[in-house]
Amino acid sequence: MSTAAPPPEIDVVGIDADDTLWHNETYFADAQATFVQILAPWTPEGEDVLALHDATERANLELFGYGIKGFTLSMVETAIDVSRGEVSISAVAELLRLGKEMLAHPVELLEGVAEAVDALAQDHRLVLITKGDLIHQETKIARSGLADRFERIEIVSEKDPATYKGILERMDVAPERFLMAGNSVRSDILPVLELGGHAVHVPYAITWSHEVVEEREDDTFPVLASLGELAEWLAG
Amino acid sequence: MSTAAPPPEIDVVGIDADDTLWHNETYFADAQATFVQILAPWTPEGEDVLALHDATERANLELFGYGIKGFTLSMVETAIDVSRGEVSISAVAELLRLGKEMLAHPVELLEGVAEAVDALAQDHRLVLITKGDLIHQETKIARSGLADRFERIEIVSEKDPATYKGILERMDVAPERFLMAGNSVRSDILPVLELGGHAVHVPYAITWSHEVVEEREDDTFPVLASLGELAEWLAG
Repeated sequence: MSTAAPPPEIDVVGIDADDTLWHNETYFADAQATFVQILAPWTPEGEDVLALHDATERANLELFGYGIKGFTLSMVETAIDVSRGEVSISAVAELLRLGKEMLAHPVELLEGVAEAVDALAQDHRLVLITKGDLIHQETKIARSGLADRFERIEIVSEKDPATYKGILERMDVAPERFLMAGNSVRSDILPVLELGGHAVHVPYAITWSHEVVEEREDDTFPVLASLGELAEWLAG
Repeated sequence: MSTAAPPPEIDVVGIDADDTLWHNETYFADAQATFVQILAPWTPEGEDVLALHDATERANLELFGYGIKGFTLSMVETAIDVSRGEVSISAVAELLRLGKEMLAHPVELLEGVAEAVDALAQDHRLVLITKGDLIHQETKIARSGLADRFERIEIVSEKDPATYKGILERMDVAPERFLMAGNSVRSDILPVLELGGHAVHVPYAITWSHEVVEEREDDTFPVLASLGELAEWLAG
């Protein structure tokens, strides 16, 4: 856990949504386990269905972007590939149902998040920055009950420096007065640091071990155990 | 063709994208024809595949939103339903390919649109307002070469009065100084009029006859034959 000093003056705090405000990766992990089960009768010995799905998703990313609809289409494509076209139609129907279940899943906030956001809102302008399917993210934001705490909601297709630059311009804030908090080093931390902004890593349970390693190797950003620590840390 | 007088002072012009800036409905119509062909071997006599797909899309709209990924998932679901689970896996694979072809389709601007947007930009702030898949709309906007003409790009999940209200607030413009131009009476015209804004209908070839009927029944908004007429019409 890093205990770096906080940046001096932050006007705007950006907050990631999936796995920062609410649970997400756990639902994906559950869905992946069900996916493997559905395909088990057609999976050749030694074939890694999830690795194949991951490769299919990456190949489709430019066309599909992030989100559950693309995840589901890639599941169907993987099912056809892994079974050499032998998978049953009823299994395909199950995959469609699985995708819909994921989209309809209730939003479960991480512990203490509502209070953490309220505390941050007292001294900062807040922006929620999330990537994925437009309608699914909007639905989750609405269900979260947190929407009105944020000055802006930015649903983006990719979290790269250009995306953050656009958001900062629209909010009329300089990078050195912006801080981003989120669970993904790749999406929430590095692109913001590249712009000259500040970022705080709030790891999520599932990727915890992986991220801790990254943090130790290149400890250039603070790490907090929960979003609940951020307001106090910013206050110095 | 209506020849109503233009509104006195318009600061911001909103422009729809699909079937207003570039062709869209024609590609959907082509894809639907291919879809019907693929399913022909499993379609019972007298069954209307497109009507069933349309009903499936509507039932899925709340979960999927607009866009080609949802369109494709609904094609697979329809294929399973219409064939009573008998459709072949190779047909499902063809449907996935069809969806990807739609997503990868080049952007073909409507005739005169680039010049029309340039003419409008001389005296107005412009905002592009489109609904659908986030990444697909972004890709089309990038491919169109028109992005830099617009002060803002708004990709939204639904074009209702609340959506337009949010955009007008973000652009700090009063409804009476905003005019929307697009091909859809339901999405581009009526919600803007409801807000107290102005709107101009620019019908697209495929829905032309349907929209002309609507226009004659309730002629409360101007209709232009092409976006190219808008700048001159606004100049009075």
